[in-house]
Amino acid sequence: MTTQTSTLVNGVNVDQLLATINAVRQNPDIARFQFRAHNEWIGGGQSRTSIQGFYGAGQEDASRTRPFILEGDEPPVLLGGNAGPNAVEAVLHALASCLAVGFIYNAAAQGINVESLEFDLEGDLDLHAFLGLSDQTRPGYENIRLTYRVKSDAPREKIVELCDYVQKTSPVVDILRKPVPVAITLKD
Amino acid sequence: MTTQTSTLVNGVNVDQLLATINAVRQNPDIARFQFRAHNEWIGGGQSRTSIQGFYGAGQEDASRTRPFILEGDEPPVLLGGNAGPNAVEAVLHALASCLAVGFIYNAAAQGINVESLEFDLEGDLDLHAFLGLSDQTRPGYENIRLTYRVKSDAPREKIVELCDYVQKTSPVVDILRKPVPVAITLKD
Repeated sequence: MTTQTSTLVNGVNVDQLLATINAVRQNPDIARFQFRAHNEWIGGGQSRTSIQGFYGAGQEDASRTRPFILEGDEPPVLLGGNAGPNAVEAVLHALASCLAVGFIYNAAAQGINVESLEFDLEGDLDLHAFLGLSDQTRPGYENIRLTYRVKSDAPREKIVELCDYVQKTSPVVDILRKPVPVAITLKD
Repeated sequence: MTTQTSTLVNGVNVDQLLATINAVRQNPDIARFQFRAHNEWIGGGQSRTSIQGFYGAGQEDASRTRPFILEGDEPPVLLGGNAGPNAVEAVLHALASCLAVGFIYNAAAQGINVESLEFDLEGDLDLHAFLGLSDQTRPGYENIRLTYRVKSDAPREKIVELCDYVQKTSPVVDILRKPVPVAITLKD
């Protein structure tokens, strides 16, 4: 009989985290991931995204037996039916959930216990460009503001340091702050 | 008794769309929106975002009686429990749902009937930066590819033109292709 014990910090298996980091050090190719999504328009402003498979760690992932379904729609003031949050609200979700993972995993790796973690986000957007009324304003967010609230028994300076580090390594912060090439193709 | 008729194209109320555009022309301030989200960490890689109120068209919106809840998590290979798609997959959803709205609303404004509209998306990401193993690769997507499939009785050149126009005015395409200032603050 074999007994396996694992070290859980913040619900993260730290042994597996360190093993993953070591595995990538030894075989850099396993760090290459390809994520995917499929979206179908339903009607009006409503569309539905399915997310299931991805490639990573050298293989196709098969851990998800069913797709995640995400609804997108607009509120009535933007001519929709409120079947889901709109696209720019989904961007705020992506940002928050990215920082949550980054903060918690890095805290776990450093042995910092987190009691609670919350984010509030705001994004300012001017509709002129989307409505085709101006090319003087950008179509997307002019600004995004995010505030953290963290409860932890770690010294305050450790948490400040961790926040700084997490923003530098967060995929979605990087996606927002720096240009991402987006290739858009119309299929026959 | 008053009878109201409205012109629906692709499920979009075109009269309301044109009225919105005219209202913004006459009062540019109503185009200013502020979207919001709140996120709470659940455990491990899992967090939950609530999206409900926003400011727009000169007032606080009250159309949503309950918040939309979005789950974020990682797959097991990234130390999560698959409670939801991860943050960078949510970015793909945001992009697709934005282009769906933009395409459908602009088609409606031009009287183009759309029968179906689908998107497939892929994003390439190298985990080295997120894992703190390299500052030579970026933490976020290196590339995003999106393909459209449109069924419509409009001439092909009209659809191609519409695709080009929609990418130029899409909030999320702009957010991805151009830098967005993100202010991150740790609250006491």
